[in-house]
Amino acid sequence: MPLNNIMTEKFLRSAYGGESMAHMRYLIWGEIAEKENLPNIARLFRAIAYAEWAHANNQFRELKDKKGSFSVSAGAVFVVGKTVENLQGAIDGELHEAQQLYPVYLQTARFQNEKGAERAFHFALEAEKIHARLFQEAKTAAEQGKDMELGTVYVCPICGHTHVGTIPGKCPVCGVTEDKYKTFPA
Amino acid sequence: MPLNNIMTEKFLRSAYGGESMAHMRYLIWGEIAEKENLPNIARLFRAIAYAEWAHANNQFRELKDKKGSFSVSAGAVFVVGKTVENLQGAIDGELHEAQQLYPVYLQTARFQNEKGAERAFHFALEAEKIHARLFQEAKTAAEQGKDMELGTVYVCPICGHTHVGTIPGKCPVCGVTEDKYKTFPA
Ligand SMILES: [Fe+2]
Ligand SMILES: [Fe+2]
Ligand SMILES: [Fe+2]
Ligand SMILES: [Fe+2]
Ligand SMILES: [Fe+2]
Ligand SMILES: [Fe+2]
Repeated sequence: MPLNNIMTEKFLRSAYGGESMAHMRYLIWGEIAEKENLPNIARLFRAIAYAEWAHANNQFRELKDKKGSFSVSAGAVFVVGKTVENLQGAIDGELHEAQQLYPVYLQTARFQNEKGAERAFHFALEAEKIHARLFQEAKTAAEQGKDMELGTVYVCPICGHTHVGTIPGKCPVCGVTEDKYKTFPA
Repeated sequence: MPLNNIMTEKFLRSAYGGESMAHMRYLIWGEIAEKENLPNIARLFRAIAYAEWAHANNQFRELKDKKGSFSVSAGAVFVVGKTVENLQGAIDGELHEAQQLYPVYLQTARFQNEKGAERAFHFALEAEKIHARLFQEAKTAAEQGKDMELGTVYVCPICGHTHVGTIPGKCPVCGVTEDKYKTFPA
């Protein structure tokens, strides 16, 4: 369905910018964690970078009728430090998205009856809550100078749902079957 | 060396936003090319996405003394179409960076004597010129309903230099040795 409202359209573009920058900083922070000999935390960064790709992918595709070059304004966290510090940056970013940004974007999409954007923002919101929690677990370990305990991470390619341990039968957020999940093995 | 000038700092952040969004849209357009049965064009998108990662990585790291959450303003191209159309979007973005954005950012970094930013912008500028040309070759093929001819693509992880065919002895832009290149095999 076409996008009819400029506010939702701007929020989709801003969300795409934010997700793209989050994806990128998680790749960078993952390399730093790898060099600090924290392979599980590095793997968590890579898995969540993939989830942010799924969010950006949805948002970009919802904008398909609004072609062209645009100036995008989006929030981003900048830190290049030790992994403990980078993880605090990750937590700050995820909490901002889970508590402020996506609740408002989702509310707007509903208010403007933009079904595709509503779906994309709902998917992101649900995943960011989990991301904040996983990064908090990682930080607790890193503060003690240890790598985190981390089973296999499963990420839904449709909605970015991020799950640790045994694979969910189907995605609890978007319903996709488990064979579609992308796996980051322990 | 620390970053002393706000204009260069803002340009680094904007460049990071632009590179992150370019990386992301090339991943998405690569998937579309794959589905259109254009594996070489898909591979070109993936290789160049990696080069944009290198640019973003440099810019993010140059900002290491400027920690925190920021609102980033950056340009981005939005198209979700057939590969021919997506390639025109890619060409538009690369030409903008090669002819307008990076020449001005580089000039500013020199004017403000910001050596680290100068290096990062120089690396990006040199790569974007090549990217524009490679995407143009891809588009010429796609317009005729064909995949492009494409040898192995080598991408420098330091500066994003993108080279097709036989591996360069060392990177002509940053001087790194050939064993460091990331390979996208034909
Ligand atoms: Fe996200
Ligand atoms: Fe997230
Ligand atoms: Fe899902
Ligand atoms: Fe670039
Ligand atoms: Fe480029
Ligand atoms: Fe290089």
